[in-house]
Amino acid sequence: MIITVSREFGSGGRELGKRLSEALGIPCYDNEIIEMIAKEHGFDEQYVSHLSEKSIRAAYPFTISRRFAVMPDYVTKQTVKIAVEQRKMIEGLASQGDCIIIGRCADIILREYHPFNLFVYADTEAKLRRCIERASENEHFTHDEIKRKMREVDKNRARQRDFYTDTKWGAKENYHLCIDTSGKEIKMLIPAISEYIKCWFGCDEQKVFI
Amino acid sequence: MIITVSREFGSGGRELGKRLSEALGIPCYDNEIIEMIAKEHGFDEQYVSHLSEKSIRAAYPFTISRRFAVMPDYVTKQTVKIAVEQRKMIEGLASQGDCIIIGRCADIILREYHPFNLFVYADTEAKLRRCIERASENEHFTHDEIKRKMREVDKNRARQRDFYTDTKWGAKENYHLCIDTSGKEIKMLIPAISEYIKCWFGCDEQKVFI
Repeated sequence: MIITVSREFGSGGRELGKRLSEALGIPCYDNEIIEMIAKEHGFDEQYVSHLSEKSIRAAYPFTISRRFAVMPDYVTKQTVKIAVEQRKMIEGLASQGDCIIIGRCADIILREYHPFNLFVYADTEAKLRRCIERASENEHFTHDEIKRKMREVDKNRARQRDFYTDTKWGAKENYHLCIDTSGKEIKMLIPAISEYIKCWFGCDEQKVFI
Repeated sequence: MIITVSREFGSGGRELGKRLSEALGIPCYDNEIIEMIAKEHGFDEQYVSHLSEKSIRAAYPFTISRRFAVMPDYVTKQTVKIAVEQRKMIEGLASQGDCIIIGRCADIILREYHPFNLFVYADTEAKLRRCIERASENEHFTHDEIKRKMREVDKNRARQRDFYTDTKWGAKENYHLCIDTSGKEIKMLIPAISEYIKCWFGCDEQKVFI
């Protein structure tokens, strides 16, 4: 039971993944992946996190020359290294057993594991509300600043996916279930979602030759 | 609890709606709407069904001159009549109480009832399989013919929606839940979906002024 959660920034996808993990009793990996890479290679976590945002683009040689030509050589090398490590880490986690992986193109990386791919989204007002409610005391952004951030983060996620596959980030046909969390308490929806996933893994249609 | 089910041709949306209706104990309307209109107005069902496919386009005067200029006047009049009747019928059914309505742009027509809008889809192979399995003994279509039919029906559904709204048919942001039925036994998924819908209607977030 490998589950991947892709999500729009501010839609509550991370919360949904974490709560699903508790309900199903299986581990959930999000920033933990960054922490593990940092620990294993003696890097600073923030540094890994920063590079990992560019990492997927850099993980393939043909993109390096095109996109990273102006970057200092040592940054490029580290970025590629982290991308490769992230991919290996995700594959390693999946091979250990049931788990949930949030973001990081895990739906594509783990294709051969036939994961259940979830996409979480919400309308702009709901995402704005969520971002404001969850901001720390020191964060004071205007609505426009938050909206810009939303667009930037989601654009980057879509772009990262581009390097793995031609299929589009957020297009429903690339996911098994798409959930709109607008105005809803995520924790209340968890029992039904976890029930759905358990059924999904156990209800393959008998295939008839066509 | 008003539920609308939009679906790709061959994805099993109708089966899902009917089974959901049994699970939730509320009525489900699909072709019944055509039957009711035919009965009320003394029309032949097939005639109503045929016209209703064009009906939404014709329901608004501004579209008539543009799109129906070459149609005989009596056909145009009947088409508009049936479109208006269908709309009234859908509103009437919703005003009577909890129900499920399949297709017919009910998600748009019933906007003010704040329905739960479901979209059902599947990959082409799964839809093809479903069409073949469900064909009657007298129906012998090639795979290409079925695929053409799929494209035509879905294109028509998308076009009908165009006349009510600018939002796109099948785009996840216009639905609360999108379900991929590819290779799955729909009946096995019903308990979790009905549970999800019940929770959805009962878990509005407390709104904080932003």
